[in-house]
Amino acid sequence: MFNYIIVGAGFAGSVMAERISNILDEKVLLIEKRDHIGGNCYDFYDNDGILIHKYGPHIFHTNLKKVWDYLSNFTEWTHYEHKVLGYVDGKKVPIPFNLNTLRQILPDNADLIEDKLIKTYGYNSKIPILELSKTNDKYLKFLSKVVFQKIFLNYTKKQWGRDPNDLDPSVTNRVPIITSKDNRYFQDKYQGLPKKGYISIFHKLLSNSRIHILLNTDFKELIKLKDKKIYVSGKHFKGKFIFTGSIDELFNYKFGNLPYRSLKFKFKKYNQEYYQDVGTINYPNSHDFTRITEYKHLTGQSNPKTVINIEYPQKYCINQNIPYYPIPKKEYNLIYKEYEHEAQSIDNLYLLGRLAEYKYYNMDEVIHRALKVFEEISSE
Amino acid sequence: MFNYIIVGAGFAGSVMAERISNILDEKVLLIEKRDHIGGNCYDFYDNDGILIHKYGPHIFHTNLKKVWDYLSNFTEWTHYEHKVLGYVDGKKVPIPFNLNTLRQILPDNADLIEDKLIKTYGYNSKIPILELSKTNDKYLKFLSKVVFQKIFLNYTKKQWGRDPNDLDPSVTNRVPIITSKDNRYFQDKYQGLPKKGYISIFHKLLSNSRIHILLNTDFKELIKLKDKKIYVSGKHFKGKFIFTGSIDELFNYKFGNLPYRSLKFKFKKYNQEYYQDVGTINYPNSHDFTRITEYKHLTGQSNPKTVINIEYPQKYCINQNIPYYPIPKKEYNLIYKEYEHEAQSIDNLYLLGRLAEYKYYNMDEVIHRALKVFEEISSE
Repeated sequence: MFNYIIVGAGFAGSVMAERISNILDEKVLLIEKRDHIGGNCYDFYDNDGILIHKYGPHIFHTNLKKVWDYLSNFTEWTHYEHKVLGYVDGKKVPIPFNLNTLRQILPDNADLIEDKLIKTYGYNSKIPILELSKTNDKYLKFLSKVVFQKIFLNYTKKQWGRDPNDLDPSVTNRVPIITSKDNRYFQDKYQGLPKKGYISIFHKLLSNSRIHILLNTDFKELIKLKDKKIYVSGKHFKGKFIFTGSIDELFNYKFGNLPYRSLKFKFKKYNQEYYQDVGTINYPNSHDFTRITEYKHLTGQSNPKTVINIEYPQKYCINQNIPYYPIPKKEYNLIYKEYEHEAQSIDNLYLLGRLAEYKYYNMDEVIHRALKVFEEISSE
Repeated sequence: MFNYIIVGAGFAGSVMAERISNILDEKVLLIEKRDHIGGNCYDFYDNDGILIHKYGPHIFHTNLKKVWDYLSNFTEWTHYEHKVLGYVDGKKVPIPFNLNTLRQILPDNADLIEDKLIKTYGYNSKIPILELSKTNDKYLKFLSKVVFQKIFLNYTKKQWGRDPNDLDPSVTNRVPIITSKDNRYFQDKYQGLPKKGYISIFHKLLSNSRIHILLNTDFKELIKLKDKKIYVSGKHFKGKFIFTGSIDELFNYKFGNLPYRSLKFKFKKYNQEYYQDVGTINYPNSHDFTRITEYKHLTGQSNPKTVINIEYPQKYCINQNIPYYPIPKKEYNLIYKEYEHEAQSIDNLYLLGRLAEYKYYNMDEVIHRALKVFEEISSE
């Protein structure tokens, strides 16, 4: 009945469904465990009309013109450039650490350190904090210690539940020092939020009547792997199977569990116009939560009330909470490689997305991957 | 795989799915043609946070305690009693026509006519306009002509696209004269709107993970009737099949099409707090639309902007627009009876709801029917 089955209705699965139905003119069965489309990008207007990201703040940013152009077919954009402040020593300072932050935290030596930074690394560079700590200059060494202690260490411990040394550089590089006065959190060329919410993008991606959306359904209820073949309701499936769920679950954890970091959110509503000055404030040292995001800054809505989102990183337990972040460590990548190898031996199985590829993709990267996988599939 | 398949995720199908999954603890496949649950009761918060009924105003009202209690398991209520004004001779008068309307439209003879009405029909009675016209009293006759001409005739023509005489009394009785000063549109004991929208009710009705929701899917893609048996993906289906779609479509229109009345909506947003004084204003004589509803009156939301919904009744064409109202006429009921008879010869087929039973049910009546059909099924 279907030549294409997709598991997961986040960006990975939804972009694939859109391409297959609109370009190949083929029928798609899209299976989704939750009772809604959109994956972790799902947002909704609450009963005061405030647009809320159910699974934490999603700010779209990319340098990939192709991805921006593609997505712009499905939405208009609210112009927004994310600003983050970190609550450090009782002050709110720009994050990532930049030359403005330097002036607030080390005002006495700011001129000297700024000179040294620019001379050593160039203007407008991004220096990973673990990179900076390798310096021999005593001022830069001191700076690296301050940033490490005050901004990096405890935030990373809270966020990942482990010591920074115990993580792959690809994660820790996400907290750099920037040698400019650009207070924006992202420097990408294209930045914004979808005008009517991410959900409106997903409704449009999935609007082709050839896409059949099966909600509330664990793929395991329909799909079995046996002898390197895919079975759907007991029948050998010869179409293409695009899987965007957790790869270890697909193979019944035969090579072991892949660990993830999870999150818990507290949402609070206030009867006042704004709660804080910027979109997100990070709390590297105080409190159990990592950050507070106020959605109205992101979405540009005006409303007499406001909603904030407090993030508490959590241990991930299968079937109990949501796997948000793969944990990039060599040992886990080795487990992943075993699954990947197994997957390659199965005809017409395509792995795609954060969970299936065990990679900390941003939204734009996932969409980019989906467009590539679609090219592969359609040229076969 | 499934013992229960339901077609349609409006109240009929969703209540059935809720009961079957929660009470019988059975798995359900719920197939829905649209990309959302909730049928015509679907509502959403727009990007100014205004709650809008996508398929026209739905005001919940019932005298059935059982239905009210059942639904109250899934929502809190906003207290609301619907008020309608009719735009007649340049004035806005209470609808249905009552003793207050009488005073506004026929001020000179109001006392006399009021006396006669109460003496003839009793206080607080509902008199269908076609009933009133049978009177021999010249004042009441005059009244009946006024109401017929000014309020009833053109509205009915617009609403149904045909002459009142060409309709079953069950429809025309929906426009009575009321011999009291109660300006409420409904007199039911229980009235209100779900606090977080109808959509929140549907999410709760369908929250059991045993309910698998297949959106964007025409039942005909999965289900075939052949030799009085039900086939699902080519296999003889021996479970129970609950159908809430159009019965003529189920039988491939073999006894002819069942006609419906359709609607087109225009939504307009205004940058002002309110557009009109009450929930709905009827336009019996002016304009091509029948009525304008302002949602904020219904939902009780406060918001600096407001949204209105203008209703244009339409001819219904299969697959082109939505069948809203079955047209209660004897000749169509005869066609329906043929389908019903055919349906009875098919084991485990249950017909339920406005479309499957070709009856102009209100929401409470549909829920009442669903609870009854569930009792039937579960006692078998």
